[in-house]
Amino acid sequence: MSAMQLNDTHNPSLQSWVTSANQAGCDFPIQNLPFAVFRRVGSGQAFRGGVAIGDHIVDLAAALSADVFTGTAHTAAQACAASTLNAFMALGPKAWSALRAALSQALRTGAAEQTRLTACLVPQSEAEYAVPAQIGDYTDFYTSVHHATNVGKLFRPENPLLPNYKWIPIGYHGRSSSIGISGQAFHRPVSQLMKPGATAPVVEPTKRLDYELELGVYLGTGNALGEPVALDEAESHVFGLCLFNDWSARDIQGWEYQPLGPFLSKNFASTVSPWIVTVEALAPYRTAWTRPSDDPQPLPYLDSATLRASGAIDIELEVYLQSATMREQGLAPHRLSRSNFRDAYWSVSQMVAHHTVNGCNLQPGDLLGSGTQSGPTLEEAGALIELTVGGSRSLSLPSGETRTFLEDGDTVTFKGFAQVPGAARIGFGEVAGTVLPAKPRA
Amino acid sequence: MSAMQLNDTHNPSLQSWVTSANQAGCDFPIQNLPFAVFRRVGSGQAFRGGVAIGDHIVDLAAALSADVFTGTAHTAAQACAASTLNAFMALGPKAWSALRAALSQALRTGAAEQTRLTACLVPQSEAEYAVPAQIGDYTDFYTSVHHATNVGKLFRPENPLLPNYKWIPIGYHGRSSSIGISGQAFHRPVSQLMKPGATAPVVEPTKRLDYELELGVYLGTGNALGEPVALDEAESHVFGLCLFNDWSARDIQGWEYQPLGPFLSKNFASTVSPWIVTVEALAPYRTAWTRPSDDPQPLPYLDSATLRASGAIDIELEVYLQSATMREQGLAPHRLSRSNFRDAYWSVSQMVAHHTVNGCNLQPGDLLGSGTQSGPTLEEAGALIELTVGGSRSLSLPSGETRTFLEDGDTVTFKGFAQVPGAARIGFGEVAGTVLPAKPRA
Repeated sequence: MSAMQLNDTHNPSLQSWVTSANQAGCDFPIQNLPFAVFRRVGSGQAFRGGVAIGDHIVDLAAALSADVFTGTAHTAAQACAASTLNAFMALGPKAWSALRAALSQALRTGAAEQTRLTACLVPQSEAEYAVPAQIGDYTDFYTSVHHATNVGKLFRPENPLLPNYKWIPIGYHGRSSSIGISGQAFHRPVSQLMKPGATAPVVEPTKRLDYELELGVYLGTGNALGEPVALDEAESHVFGLCLFNDWSARDIQGWEYQPLGPFLSKNFASTVSPWIVTVEALAPYRTAWTRPSDDPQPLPYLDSATLRASGAIDIELEVYLQSATMREQGLAPHRLSRSNFRDAYWSVSQMVAHHTVNGCNLQPGDLLGSGTQSGPTLEEAGALIELTVGGSRSLSLPSGETRTFLEDGDTVTFKGFAQVPGAARIGFGEVAGTVLPAKPRA
Repeated sequence: MSAMQLNDTHNPSLQSWVTSANQAGCDFPIQNLPFAVFRRVGSGQAFRGGVAIGDHIVDLAAALSADVFTGTAHTAAQACAASTLNAFMALGPKAWSALRAALSQALRTGAAEQTRLTACLVPQSEAEYAVPAQIGDYTDFYTSVHHATNVGKLFRPENPLLPNYKWIPIGYHGRSSSIGISGQAFHRPVSQLMKPGATAPVVEPTKRLDYELELGVYLGTGNALGEPVALDEAESHVFGLCLFNDWSARDIQGWEYQPLGPFLSKNFASTVSPWIVTVEALAPYRTAWTRPSDDPQPLPYLDSATLRASGAIDIELEVYLQSATMREQGLAPHRLSRSNFRDAYWSVSQMVAHHTVNGCNLQPGDLLGSGTQSGPTLEEAGALIELTVGGSRSLSLPSGETRTFLEDGDTVTFKGFAQVPGAARIGFGEVAGTVLPAKPRA
């Protein structure tokens, strides 16, 4: 399906019999219907697919047993009953769309399925989540020119934005095994650091621990090795988007990253949100993709009329920090910054087209990170290294504390939502993670 | 088990009733017993685990049915009957060793199991192989200081060996999905290139396609996220080694690799050998790991008495090239170079200890590439970019052709073996791959 096709499921006047879905500001109205894998906390159940509606989850395995779905939607729901969504993702856009349409019908006010489906609802407050796909390969991109410039200034003052940046959607391979679900708590990583002015490195806990505000992009259908995906086909291979925190240790990164890229500075933990908002749900929030006229225009394999018309997506992103002291004092998480995915220099379709132009094969459940989403102003920076200008400027918290980089006990939470005139507001929920002290070393 | 423990299975005077195993120069004598997954060509059978002996394979699923094994060896063989070796790898060194010991006993001249096991043998000439593990994550290291210096001179003449090289076993994440088994044929990759003197990139097939002569290291048992593996424990987590070709497109690499590392220049294909030679089989070929006294000595987490005594492994490696013309003329593959893994600047144990020092979790079946193994002389270079000094010097083939980089139709084959006084010679078999022309673009 084209990115721009709106259908009955996007109608902003739709209401659900799950009344919490109809409340202003709810992330999960009936126009959203994002997917996760979940189970009841403490149930010992297997994880299974679910769809958010208001403050509840439709248990798709239960809905199958209750015979809520027929035809393609039934087949799709069967694939969702597994402990990862890979099989569902592999079914492709028609199946995703059929299940979405069936859920949209069955959850509407007055739907005949209300009684049967009510028995399949689980309160989100009683659920725990798992990483929703077996992620075969994780690739991180670098799509914000503002982030690339801000960080480039700190790592390479003489040469902040490299000559390839405006031609290539720069990406590199990351670590799948350490990707965790929202709520992940990880020990402050230890590795080699070279301190300013030192002549030999030391092995110490990072002093410059940071978050990176990203969106994650899950592949749906893959491509065979040797078969590139054309730009205008790219989004039909994408299942949906999530919030993603690519935690980074800047001092480890600075010492290790040349010439082959970041490694231990990134692979200790990365955190995804439980909910995947589908490409179809994001259709109303598409916006024109533009390139400043004095910048290089994209090469033909990265350019098309569809891209220019609707290649960008208007998704507002927010970063919150709550320190251990703030938690003790009952202070709410403090917003550090906001930015918007529409400012990305490269689109989702360009990431996929570039990744595969050499024949590289993508597979269902693969994850692409967008790279840190920083906007054009300093206040819109998506990482502390930018907000604090490399640690030279400290941020104030409501507790009276200050921050340059993350401290032990800090919880970082990202939120995201899409909201444009004439469409419902839909949200991504959140992704949260907490820094534990470095492990004592033997 | 310690890397140095020799036992009865290493006895160089052992002979097998599979007589091809006793021939001089055979890669698979009874002292080797490497693992693969295979099936009979055209059988439609599921792939299953096998062990090489001479020119045959012991079908472990068949041997299980024939009740050849008991106790731990039986449990281990059960895990090997699957279509990947991940479950077997996860069992750990005691199980690997028990199965090896049982096979060594059962395959010896005069063994009571000869009749039962003869029915479980499949000729290697009738077998096809698959990638032997589901590789969750693939990490490539850069352990040859000679390669790093040679390539560094070409990419960064002013700054060939970066300051971190002698402190950090440099590594970066690679692509799992495009790893194929020996025999892999792949289309010459297309991507962005910036030609010398040009002001804008073009999208073309690579003109500088290269191989990289590497060893692959399969993880056996993993470690939990947040739990580093100590240097002297590292090899107990390693199942074994294979031959590995990390195909590389140098012109794509030169344009894309800064600042986040190689991406499309590497992820179009990488090829592993079918056979994994176990760490236990390599015990007789261990040798002292040394560091020149005027180089930085390793930091404590990368140093130990065991490393110094036996951290290196004497494995001879060879590169052969056969062009399409040579194949037509009946000319044998031509040896381009030889090198030895004992010259690596960083050891297998150092790769594992460094990879996990920040808490990164490794999993059974993960693959670590050693990086290109180039020796101290130009003739020992493990890649064409070094052998031809960046394409400035051409190599002559027996067909009268010349090469700077790979041409369409070229088949590159690596071989490897270990041979020291007082031990049997054991081999790795081979890994071969062929370059197909670039795909016509739509």
